[in-house]
Amino acid sequence: MNNDPRIILLAHGSSDQRWCQTFEKLATPTLESVAGSRIAYMELAEPSLETIISEGKLDGIDTFTIIPLFLAAGRHLRKDVPGMIKELQATHDVTITLAPPIGENPQLGHAIRDVVNQELERQKQPA
Amino acid sequence: MNNDPRIILLAHGSSDQRWCQTFEKLATPTLESVAGSRIAYMELAEPSLETIISEGKLDGIDTFTIIPLFLAAGRHLRKDVPGMIKELQATHDVTITLAPPIGENPQLGHAIRDVVNQELERQKQPA
Repeated sequence: MNNDPRIILLAHGSSDQRWCQTFEKLATPTLESVAGSRIAYMELAEPSLETIISEGKLDGIDTFTIIPLFLAAGRHLRKDVPGMIKELQATHDVTITLAPPIGENPQLGHAIRDVVNQELERQKQPA
Repeated sequence: MNNDPRIILLAHGSSDQRWCQTFEKLATPTLESVAGSRIAYMELAEPSLETIISEGKLDGIDTFTIIPLFLAAGRHLRKDVPGMIKELQATHDVTITLAPPIGENPQLGHAIRDVVNQELERQKQPA
């Protein structure tokens, strides 16, 4: 028995395939280690949030947690996504929790520091 | 003697102070551990990239590396920022390198997985 909510990593989306590929790579360690987790896009790319919620419902899932792959909360996370969630909950009879954007977790600040140190090391290597 | 470039963490910027506060927190581990590093905003907030380059030049710095605090490269990083860099290099007689956005570094995918696992643990705690 597993009562964990289904995790949805929510990215902004873009018509540029390179944008989506970057988010798919970012999501890979999560998708490979968290059972049932999915990536979804807010707009301009598939799978949409609606697609992923419908699919989950068919799988018998009725609680979802959205983890926004956004560094900070702007209008999208303060207004647009809560509006989408309200509609999806009503349409599909599910419970959807919106977690804070990943950038509000201290882990991200540490990862950024590590990226910067890697970049400094890389620049010291002979070309 | 230190020939390292000055590191600039470049965030998008917003007129919403909460947005900027999130990026300042994200930058803190880097700013505290990488000597001379700075945060700058692409637009809508201060310090701007121009402010930080001018200040560096006054400090005797003439090479800079911009690490974009963006998860993926969209129009801003493919067009707008390179355009700004070209102008700043000409105006201030400096060399500015644009690193890939942080989201293209595998560290970030691992940090996201850790954030998701923390969120799952948090939801298991009694309220």
